[in-house]
Amino acid sequence: MNNILCCNAGRRGRLMIDMRKTIGDSGNVVATDNWSVAPAIFFANKQYVVPKITHPNYIQEVLGICKKEDIKAIFTLIDPEIDLLASNKKKFEEIGVLPLCPSKQTADLCFDKYSMYLYLKNHGVNTPLTFHELDDFKAAYFKGEIQFPVFIKPRTGSGSVGAHKVNTMQDLENYYAENAFDYIIQEFMQGDCDADAYIDYYSKEVVSIFSKKKIETRIGGASKTISFKDQRLFDFVQSFMHLFDFAGAIDMDFFFRDGEYYLSEINPRFGGAYLHAYGAGVDFFKLIINNINGVTNEVRIGDYDEGVLMLMYDDVVITKEVDLLRDYHD
Amino acid sequence: MNNILCCNAGRRGRLMIDMRKTIGDSGNVVATDNWSVAPAIFFANKQYVVPKITHPNYIQEVLGICKKEDIKAIFTLIDPEIDLLASNKKKFEEIGVLPLCPSKQTADLCFDKYSMYLYLKNHGVNTPLTFHELDDFKAAYFKGEIQFPVFIKPRTGSGSVGAHKVNTMQDLENYYAENAFDYIIQEFMQGDCDADAYIDYYSKEVVSIFSKKKIETRIGGASKTISFKDQRLFDFVQSFMHLFDFAGAIDMDFFFRDGEYYLSEINPRFGGAYLHAYGAGVDFFKLIINNINGVTNEVRIGDYDEGVLMLMYDDVVITKEVDLLRDYHD
Repeated sequence: MNNILCCNAGRRGRLMIDMRKTIGDSGNVVATDNWSVAPAIFFANKQYVVPKITHPNYIQEVLGICKKEDIKAIFTLIDPEIDLLASNKKKFEEIGVLPLCPSKQTADLCFDKYSMYLYLKNHGVNTPLTFHELDDFKAAYFKGEIQFPVFIKPRTGSGSVGAHKVNTMQDLENYYAENAFDYIIQEFMQGDCDADAYIDYYSKEVVSIFSKKKIETRIGGASKTISFKDQRLFDFVQSFMHLFDFAGAIDMDFFFRDGEYYLSEINPRFGGAYLHAYGAGVDFFKLIINNINGVTNEVRIGDYDEGVLMLMYDDVVITKEVDLLRDYHD
Repeated sequence: MNNILCCNAGRRGRLMIDMRKTIGDSGNVVATDNWSVAPAIFFANKQYVVPKITHPNYIQEVLGICKKEDIKAIFTLIDPEIDLLASNKKKFEEIGVLPLCPSKQTADLCFDKYSMYLYLKNHGVNTPLTFHELDDFKAAYFKGEIQFPVFIKPRTGSGSVGAHKVNTMQDLENYYAENAFDYIIQEFMQGDCDADAYIDYYSKEVVSIFSKKKIETRIGGASKTISFKDQRLFDFVQSFMHLFDFAGAIDMDFFFRDGEYYLSEINPRFGGAYLHAYGAGVDFFKLIINNINGVTNEVRIGDYDEGVLMLMYDDVVITKEVDLLRDYHD
């Protein structure tokens, strides 16, 4: 059975629906969350309320679910758990579960955006000019190597929390003085776009890419996107993939300037707008099922139409308090 | 035919789905927006891209759609259009369309939260203590009539844009100095809850109420809610309804303190979380259909279960650029 465990499914209800559509009767979608009212778990075949990922029992609980539900592959939908899965890859492999997550080293790079910058620069991969120390930025600024506006964001973190466009040195100094986050300063680039990709569990090759431009962004991510294809982007992605050790779905952000793409960051999990790729026929769940069955996926990049739109809206789960699973307590 | 026109449907896709479910084959749901990629219009039986509501042709365009589609009732989902429909009620009535919107006077009160406060206070309706001028607030503060924290929000406006909890006089003065909005200052109250209600087009009575508490709020509104029933709230709503002239769905915000409810504001349109009411069996579309057919609805308040939950998540419309309606141009 192609049973897949999706950890901390949260609000990703449509992802569960899509996954079940692909898996059909060939397996179960099992979803967890630490809150019994996470909407996504209601769309899974089976659902578990688990402790928070910081709980000492967490991995044991998840391994227990894997055994009980005969799980064949596992992935998480929240950033802080990626490192945890990466650190425990072996434990899952030992019980026959494919951990669809990066290696520990790659997870660390994706989590720490300044380390990622240094790593990319060191390997000659196009990436926006980035600073961590305010003094280093100032030195570069006074040498004319970077101008305002700049973009600041937390060195670690996900979503758009703490990310700001900054127009003046005074504002930048204020942000650093406020010290709300450990910031990095990135040159401000336009032409942003992003891509979902699937990295085969066995070959470690990128076997599928779906790229899209943002039409509208709301708090938390893109809410309207349109698909496009550009061989230069596909080539760029393939050019740097050997520097990392991914497995499964990833989500990458890029900028485009003067005919060249720049890698901004990589989230080694299903992106919030992967729903677009699925809707356009780029089905990563099929690729997971192949991997579960020992099949190495063939490289098929760009197998979708341009001009396909994704338009996000709110839907709801209606349920009864008496029917909820119990929240986890020690 | 029970044809209903929903203006500026925006992201309210699930509302369209629910409405079509109730109307079934008895009529069409027709939806408009000024942007061809508004997700909700894809769920309507028929859809139109219209000018912005500020366009001089707007009302003519809408009246034209009403005639062409044999529309029997109209409502809007965006606040700024409520006043426009209210001002043009007669034009709709003349062509046999029920305008499900308040009178102009009631629309003005709902739009201007300080006028609403004065009106409620004048009529002895419980409402949070509110100030418009900073000096008036200070006078009351130094007399000990109000304490920090307070809640400030734009005098006019919808959603949570510009709304803040403020803890000190210094912060309050800063907000007024920044002058980003024409603010009102409200005493900070806890125990917030809200209610959807339907006011019959003919009797002007409130014939249905659904009340719920917020479990989780995200930017733009409640994302997890739970239903409750309290006769005191139902009595309170019925006690002040004669002060207004509504028709159709409204959404009200309340606070609860020391055994009494306080009315905070009224949005005279379907609230974003009306989906909860529908999911719990409180079907305002049936009431609209009755009104369309000349039937006055009977008062049936509290006809739902407590402990029903609504959990919001993101779903998507997938469509093709080539299939989009053209955006409106002069």
